Amino acid sequence: MPNTLDDRAAQYFQELQDRITAGIEAVDGGGRFREDSWSRPTGGGGRTRAMAEGKLFEKAGVAFSDVHGTLRPEMARALPGAGERFRATGISLIFHPRSPRIPTVHANVRHIQRGEGDGSVGWFGGGTDLTPYYVVPADAAQFHRTLRDCCARHDETFYPRFKRWCDDYFFLAHRNEPRGVGGIFFDYLGAGAEVTAGQAAAGPPSVRDSDPEAMFAFVRDVGDAILAAYLPIVERRKGDAWGDRERRWQTLRRGRYVEFNLLYDRGTVFGLRTDGRVESILMSLPPEVRWEYGFAPEPGTPEAESLAAIVAKKDWASEE
Amino acid sequence: MPNTLDDRAAQYFQELQDRITAGIEAVDGGGRFREDSWSRPTGGGGRTRAMAEGKLFEKAGVAFSDVHGTLRPEMARALPGAGERFRATGISLIFHPRSPRIPTVHANVRHIQRGEGDGSVGWFGGGTDLTPYYVVPADAAQFHRTLRDCCARHDETFYPRFKRWCDDYFFLAHRNEPRGVGGIFFDYLGAGAEVTAGQAAAGPPSVRDSDPEAMFAFVRDVGDAILAAYLPIVERRKGDAWGDRERRWQTLRRGRYVEFNLLYDRGTVFGLRTDGRVESILMSLPPEVRWEYGFAPEPGTPEAESLAAIVAKKDWASEE
Repeated sequence: MPNTLDDRAAQYFQELQDRITAGIEAVDGGGRFREDSWSRPTGGGGRTRAMAEGKLFEKAGVAFSDVHGTLRPEMARALPGAGERFRATGISLIFHPRSPRIPTVHANVRHIQRGEGDGSVGWFGGGTDLTPYYVVPADAAQFHRTLRDCCARHDETFYPRFKRWCDDYFFLAHRNEPRGVGGIFFDYLGAGAEVTAGQAAAGPPSVRDSDPEAMFAFVRDVGDAILAAYLPIVERRKGDAWGDRERRWQTLRRGRYVEFNLLYDRGTVFGLRTDGRVESILMSLPPEVRWEYGFAPEPGTPEAESLAAIVAKKDWASEE
Repeated sequence: MPNTLDDRAAQYFQELQDRITAGIEAVDGGGRFREDSWSRPTGGGGRTRAMAEGKLFEKAGVAFSDVHGTLRPEMARALPGAGERFRATGISLIFHPRSPRIPTVHANVRHIQRGEGDGSVGWFGGGTDLTPYYVVPADAAQFHRTLRDCCARHDETFYPRFKRWCDDYFFLAHRNEPRGVGGIFFDYLGAGAEVTAGQAAAGPPSVRDSDPEAMFAFVRDVGDAILAAYLPIVERRKGDAWGDRERRWQTLRRGRYVEFNLLYDRGTVFGLRTDGRVESILMSLPPEVRWEYGFAPEPGTPEAESLAAIVAKKDWASEE
């Protein structure tokens, strides 16, 4: 029977994967997840679930993993705490809808434990962010309000801090463009005094950050909020019409998603440079993508307006 | 009237761009390059030419640039010579054919000058490599033999060194796969004693490497060899039949091209992290790309055989 925090977190993440894949299959009404169980030669393993060519979802993936081993030196320097041993468990998901009217969503919740025995330190990280192709302000507002309410149940400072952290993180510096309308992003929750100011990028941790049980409760609440924030948007947009013009815009914007994941995303780049499972890591990449030289939407079009709304990094939760 | 080596190199690269775009338009028989001239706020500029939706070429780009300025510290540490000032001129090209039967080709030739006056040092770099979707050994052999003969006119050690350097460089470590069937890759030619062993990755420079005029003659010969090595393959393959199956394989393999360019390519990553012109840098990305979770070709199929031939890193020039 699991009783340490990392055992309980691993069990929670695995159950969350079950609930989320069941929820997505129910909404899709046709696609089914295929499961690959894998083990890592250097310790631990995972359960990757992928759906291809569903009715609503062109590509969907929910990956659970629970791995352990020895930190490489560059990771050991970057992380809080001390010691070479680590255990990392979490789930990561991404849903690429077929319709350009439905946003892509990404989410991740995880627990990292570093060191052993009394000297060990553990923390939670994660978040979720929304990438619409055609921005509907009411949808972005509802997504953010669900996350704001979730955060407010735990700490009043969380939503504004984690919204800003998300805006800062999911940003394509070479394009000077955010990836989408954001959401929340957090890390090092529960690591307490071990966290340096540089690690807690969006300000010093609040008092409650150092309480691992409270942070586990927060992360469970975030895990439950993922589909609660996203599925109402899917339901509202799934009947909206689209054609070749919208598909082209969607596939071009998916190119930005690829650029972010391969150029900036810490999990992707780190995973590929260590011994991560390539297919599970790159499951995040969209199914069909376009790059055209010098493409920019005509001023005044819905595409130009959507891009302007994304670049504006609005306080979506306060929008009407 | 230009007379310094870097002026003459810049003039040659610009003329080479003219010849190559004219050659590709003639072979395509329909598509036309669109030209964008641009200037860099911190010094210099370029002339980017792109073709979209040609008859044979789905996307083609040939970028000339001649920029100068101050090296960032991390670049100053990585490059031969001393001093903060630099001038970089060259052309970079990539042709993505519509037909999965015709390989993609990439080439680049460039000259970098570092420092000023007596303390300055300059060098040539570049190369060309072929990425077939369906490997035809005779085509790969002809491509390599053209490059081998070009190298042999200048230095007997060049082809084996630069072939190996190309195999080492155009390699997706996370996939344990080369990008294609290779070609040649070289750098620091003409920098002489300023080059460290680490920089001259494929062995110490030969005596002739330190003669800038001889290296300029070599690079001009490489510039002329690009279309000589590639166009006969285009002519042989352009009538070959293909359908949805070949298109799917091509778009999946183009995903590998994107992975290489965004994860590993020095020019791309460096360009995007400094103040490079984003559209010119990312012109290399293919027009239409796919990622499918867990895709692998069935054993015994032409796709599996092509992948096996790529992974084998053969001595193509010696193949029948």
